[in-house]
Amino acid sequence: MSTTQENQLPHIVVLGAGFGGLSFARSFPTTKARITVVDRQNHHLFQPLLYQVATAGLAAPDIAQPIRTILRDKPNLEVLMAEVTAVDAENHRVVLDGGELHYDYLVVALGGKTSYFGKDEWAEYAPGLKSLDDAMRLRRNLLLAYERAERESDPEKRQVLMTTVVVGGGPTGVELAGSFADLAQTVLYRDFDHIDPREARIILVDGGDRLLGNFPPELSAHAEKTLRVRGVEIYTGTRVTDVRAGEVDFGDQTVQAGNIVWAAGVGASPVTESLGAERDRAGRILVEPDFSVPGHPEIFAIGDLVSLTDTKGVKVPGVAQGAMQAGEHVAKAIEGDLDLKTLREPGLRPAFAYWDKGDMATIGRSAAVARIGKLKLRGWFAWVAWLALHLAFLVGLRNRISVLIQWIYAYCTYKRGARIIMGMTRLGPPGRQLDKPHRETVPAAGRDPEPVGAGSR
Amino acid sequence: MSTTQENQLPHIVVLGAGFGGLSFARSFPTTKARITVVDRQNHHLFQPLLYQVATAGLAAPDIAQPIRTILRDKPNLEVLMAEVTAVDAENHRVVLDGGELHYDYLVVALGGKTSYFGKDEWAEYAPGLKSLDDAMRLRRNLLLAYERAERESDPEKRQVLMTTVVVGGGPTGVELAGSFADLAQTVLYRDFDHIDPREARIILVDGGDRLLGNFPPELSAHAEKTLRVRGVEIYTGTRVTDVRAGEVDFGDQTVQAGNIVWAAGVGASPVTESLGAERDRAGRILVEPDFSVPGHPEIFAIGDLVSLTDTKGVKVPGVAQGAMQAGEHVAKAIEGDLDLKTLREPGLRPAFAYWDKGDMATIGRSAAVARIGKLKLRGWFAWVAWLALHLAFLVGLRNRISVLIQWIYAYCTYKRGARIIMGMTRLGPPGRQLDKPHRETVPAAGRDPEPVGAGSR
Repeated sequence: MSTTQENQLPHIVVLGAGFGGLSFARSFPTTKARITVVDRQNHHLFQPLLYQVATAGLAAPDIAQPIRTILRDKPNLEVLMAEVTAVDAENHRVVLDGGELHYDYLVVALGGKTSYFGKDEWAEYAPGLKSLDDAMRLRRNLLLAYERAERESDPEKRQVLMTTVVVGGGPTGVELAGSFADLAQTVLYRDFDHIDPREARIILVDGGDRLLGNFPPELSAHAEKTLRVRGVEIYTGTRVTDVRAGEVDFGDQTVQAGNIVWAAGVGASPVTESLGAERDRAGRILVEPDFSVPGHPEIFAIGDLVSLTDTKGVKVPGVAQGAMQAGEHVAKAIEGDLDLKTLREPGLRPAFAYWDKGDMATIGRSAAVARIGKLKLRGWFAWVAWLALHLAFLVGLRNRISVLIQWIYAYCTYKRGARIIMGMTRLGPPGRQLDKPHRETVPAAGRDPEPVGAGSR
Repeated sequence: MSTTQENQLPHIVVLGAGFGGLSFARSFPTTKARITVVDRQNHHLFQPLLYQVATAGLAAPDIAQPIRTILRDKPNLEVLMAEVTAVDAENHRVVLDGGELHYDYLVVALGGKTSYFGKDEWAEYAPGLKSLDDAMRLRRNLLLAYERAERESDPEKRQVLMTTVVVGGGPTGVELAGSFADLAQTVLYRDFDHIDPREARIILVDGGDRLLGNFPPELSAHAEKTLRVRGVEIYTGTRVTDVRAGEVDFGDQTVQAGNIVWAAGVGASPVTESLGAERDRAGRILVEPDFSVPGHPEIFAIGDLVSLTDTKGVKVPGVAQGAMQAGEHVAKAIEGDLDLKTLREPGLRPAFAYWDKGDMATIGRSAAVARIGKLKLRGWFAWVAWLALHLAFLVGLRNRISVLIQWIYAYCTYKRGARIIMGMTRLGPPGRQLDKPHRETVPAAGRDPEPVGAGSR
């Protein structure tokens, strides 16, 4: 295909290579238009497994794939690593860091960002989990907290270091809390001499009246019970009222914690503001039934940053499935326009109908809840279904094999393969005299009766 | 074993959990003394594969293993994550960040650090490769340089971004240069629209008269020839005279480069200074034939930070094998002391004899050189031997399986599994108008004749 021909093709700019953007780019026939995919990262991230990178189960490259590699075989498609700063809808232009792109069609799929409900100052003390960098920082802080506790003699300070508060009881919060509990109870507990990681406190706080608010109530109850058995303290119907350095207020108590993780709110990417469309309280654009932005039939928005109730009256959820189906739907809509050689009004394009395949969340080792259509699963079987489905949807054969092996390894050995601390800083002054021999500072009750090293699982 | 018994055992402090420290800790019988292993990282690092993390072939956790996990089953052994600041040999104490440890025996195995031959100001512009953090930064800078080049229209600036200079022609330098060349030639070249990564310049500079100075000359010649065929420019007998930001002077030329990597010098950890022993020009301690520090039969130093000529007149090389054999030797020496209930003079302990198993270096895909005893191997067979040996020595079953899979994957697909950029910063203003359609800025000669996406390997 010559450059001349290519230049005559309409130009579709896709902002973001998450589930939505990638699904669009993969399904659109690029013989009919050329595509430029813009992302600030060089990789597509499989967010549903991000919590496992944060909790030392998986390596970062296991859940990421270079966007260039994924889309390599597609003609008339270009990948550009750049940051989007605004959309100039009047002039059909996207403003990037230091440049701009003209488009005939625009697909905005920039995803969400962690939202602190207007309290952005909490971000510093209770980081969210959206990118690989977030996950690496969380992993590091978590593992460092145990190393610091090992060097601490004051039992209270030790307990604070070994306390983790997770704010938000949706799937991410539940998965994190479950994984933290497993890490302390089954992985770390054999490795320290002065602390017993099984004494770690994992606290899960949610403002709603139950965990996993979008799931059937009996599955929420099951998740809650399973987490409690594993030692997670759960506070539902409890709002976080303040977060400070190493301290969080919720209900009528203040808890000091070595780690505070925010898994509560998702807001829309700030770029949505520049589209000038009506937005909901969380900043999500109220799109037309075809995902176009009101008043701009040439601009579509999909994924976490839109709010849409579909033809069946179902609110499209902000999950991977929602974004992927939206991407395919928009690809068909634009293709239809191009075939008809006209920019149709939203009402003349097909309206979106969400195919609800269900919901799933792991609770930890051998435990999960799942709703597939009307079928409700829990326990080991749901967990295996969760594993299989996530493996199937992961992008890239290498990643699938690698993740499968990490999972088998972790299941069989009670170890986590990515338990390494990178980005070294000093641990700070230790809180105990380091020179004391083994286990002297550990209360006898908290230890195994057998000598160190005798028990091996 | 009760705490009382344990307290009566002599205390051995091991500084560093690299090959030497770990080998000591693993082979010493901890029924005879208690051990504290101190390391500033929480993981043992398999340095021979570090260059593959830097060149996007492996994930960081693939070549690292938590020290606590490795030594978990050993009784009377404690792991402490702490930074060593000095050794107070007079008082048998090690000074750590904010604490100290008393020892009866001390094993200093802190390894080397990148040495700039007194020009420490070059470190900022030509980072070395010693830790996972170094590798992650190099990977990031390397991949970002190609992304920046893709956004650049000035052919000269593009060429600069795609130029990498490796200083030092030892195994690390050769392996890095070979891997950089493979990355550009066989992995990246299909993925960009405005640049052709096959036009990347990889320059290898060494002050000696040939690459791999410790290898037999014919293997050096083979390595040099293979690298040249793969497009690496080699300058031997050439000293680097200055390094500035993105610029390096060597011989009578100045080269501008997007990345400059320092693989030339290894110096000893600065902690060796506080031992007060005589040191060579690189700062390595001149130890007794049993690895004890002169004047201190209770202090041993092993690995990269010592200089020793063994009983056969062989200078013990600063490689993993040297450190591991030294660790085992010292374990036996201390055990002998304890059995005899006396602190022997160095002359009364067995002197070390190095068992030279050979040398190996990869040159890139399907190419390596190896000397095993008197046997010299090159090419594909040497490469497979290299792979097998490194897999065998890697710590941890999970890591072995994971690395094997990454290698098979990379070999079959010409992809690299860890090609992700983390730790995002802005790319800076692009050097071209981003809005131009595909390939317009690429000279026709540098491109495949077939359309993008048609050719797939």
